[in-house]
Amino acid sequence: MGLKLEQAQSIVTAALAYARAQGLKPMGFVVLDERGALRAAAVEDGTSLARWKVAWGKANGALSMGVSSRKLHEMAVERPHFVAALGSVFDAGLVPVPGGVLIRDAAGAVIGAAGASGDTSDNDEAALLAAIGEAGLGS
Amino acid sequence: MGLKLEQAQSIVTAALAYARAQGLKPMGFVVLDERGALRAAAVEDGTSLARWKVAWGKANGALSMGVSSRKLHEMAVERPHFVAALGSVFDAGLVPVPGGVLIRDAAGAVIGAAGASGDTSDNDEAALLAAIGEAGLGS
Amino acid sequence: MGLKLEQAQSIVTAALAYARAQGLKPMGFVVLDERGALRAAAVEDGTSLARWKVAWGKANGALSMGVSSRKLHEMAVERPHFVAALGSVFDAGLVPVPGGVLIRDAAGAVIGAAGASGDTSDNDEAALLAAIGEAGLGS
Amino acid sequence: MGLKLEQAQSIVTAALAYARAQGLKPMGFVVLDERGALRAAAVEDGTSLARWKVAWGKANGALSMGVSSRKLHEMAVERPHFVAALGSVFDAGLVPVPGGVLIRDAAGAVIGAAGASGDTSDNDEAALLAAIGEAGLGS
Repeated sequence: MGLKLEQAQSIVTAALAYARAQGLKPMGFVVLDERGALRAAAVEDGTSLARWKVAWGKANGALSMGVSSRKLHEMAVERPHFVAALGSVFDAGLVPVPGGVLIRDAAGAVIGAAGASGDTSDNDEAALLAAIGEAGLGS
Repeated sequence: MGLKLEQAQSIVTAALAYARAQGLKPMGFVVLDERGALRAAAVEDGTSLARWKVAWGKANGALSMGVSSRKLHEMAVERPHFVAALGSVFDAGLVPVPGGVLIRDAAGAVIGAAGASGDTSDNDEAALLAAIGEAGLGS
Repeated sequence: MGLKLEQAQSIVTAALAYARAQGLKPMGFVVLDERGALRAAAVEDGTSLARWKVAWGKANGALSMGVSSRKLHEMAVERPHFVAALGSVFDAGLVPVPGGVLIRDAAGAVIGAAGASGDTSDNDEAALLAAIGEAGLGS
Repeated sequence: MGLKLEQAQSIVTAALAYARAQGLKPMGFVVLDERGALRAAAVEDGTSLARWKVAWGKANGALSMGVSSRKLHEMAVERPHFVAALGSVFDAGLVPVPGGVLIRDAAGAVIGAAGASGDTSDNDEAALLAAIGEAGLGS
């Protein structure tokens, strides 16, 4: 089954709306499906050169390990050498700070991951959680 | 000045509409700005695992060399070793078949590139050219 | 839903049995799920150092493009620069000769891909097709 | 002489049995021979996208340096820069936490390495040590 384009687009649209409503700094949002394939993205005007790569690295890290990038952040504090090594093993990298979250269907199955970068890590994550909830999906 | 998110999104939206109106196979569309940074993307349901990478490679090849991927295709027929080498030099690769086009502003300056993959190379390119025109931009 | 480990193992077991029954040269078999993730593999005694990579490249090419590596072989004859470029774009590569096949469920959905290398390309492919059929799946 | 396919398969089979008997989380197991070539693998249903890469990185790290990944973990705590650098030098990476072990023949010669990931690092390693012992080999 997997993530539908319509769902991926809804998450991006809602995350952008959240970012503007909250006055966040220029943001990049990326949505990957369960295969790690890109499905939807929006990267705002004024973002730095690799802002989208940071968002992607958060999403890819979450998806690759099956946990949020907030959890990867905690793991990185405990065992920095482990998380650094994971990043070098994953083709699309891993960025272990909040702002990368799993996307789950109604049954709780992982159907993808979303990544955000631009503001504080906490705000990045909050934008995604709000958007995923608005799209009727779980994290 | 550069490509605006709104413009990148318009191109993706118009390309998706074109693809459905023409009954193309499931498509992937990627829009990069003049720096090669991801700005917008939509990858349809039913696309193969790396469809988005093919679209990206077309866009990145076009942007990297300042010509359409149709021109890169012609160059690859004439001097395959040259184009193969280019691909190995560019981080995001180069896919030398039609379906990667430059995006130009009203003054003719390159402000980004778009890539498409899913149907025939000619149809991939046609979707982008229609979408870029509809967005009031040039190629 | 996706490919189950039990199914991946059945394919490998049947392919090995086919290879021995037919007296093929030492073989390597790799089974990936729809995400491109490794699920099962068996590489026989006497295989050369990178035999498994050839099998993997066939499977990954098929999965990445949504066609068999036999089809990729035909594409490579027609447009060698295109297929060479694809290989450089896919992280796990692409080997465009027969011996990489899609795995489909009863509904015809792609749930993975299998790759084989060791004997002639035709025999490599024949081993996989027999094994996938025996596992009650399609290609 | 080297690792036989039959031995590699025995290790995977026993590790899977151990994992289910102990109620471990969904696991990925990879067995490499003394050349670093893939010989056998089984990755369970429900594993995250890159679980198999973590298992591989543990096995490859162990084989590449000639010590267990538990030892690499100790080295990483003492000299993180050294172990991080090693990972960037090895094509298949290095994941320095327990769960990657050498496989030795009766004479004590290294004939390969096995990697596991899915549960705690300690449990990952325990599954492999039990399986290698059951296969009549050493670590």
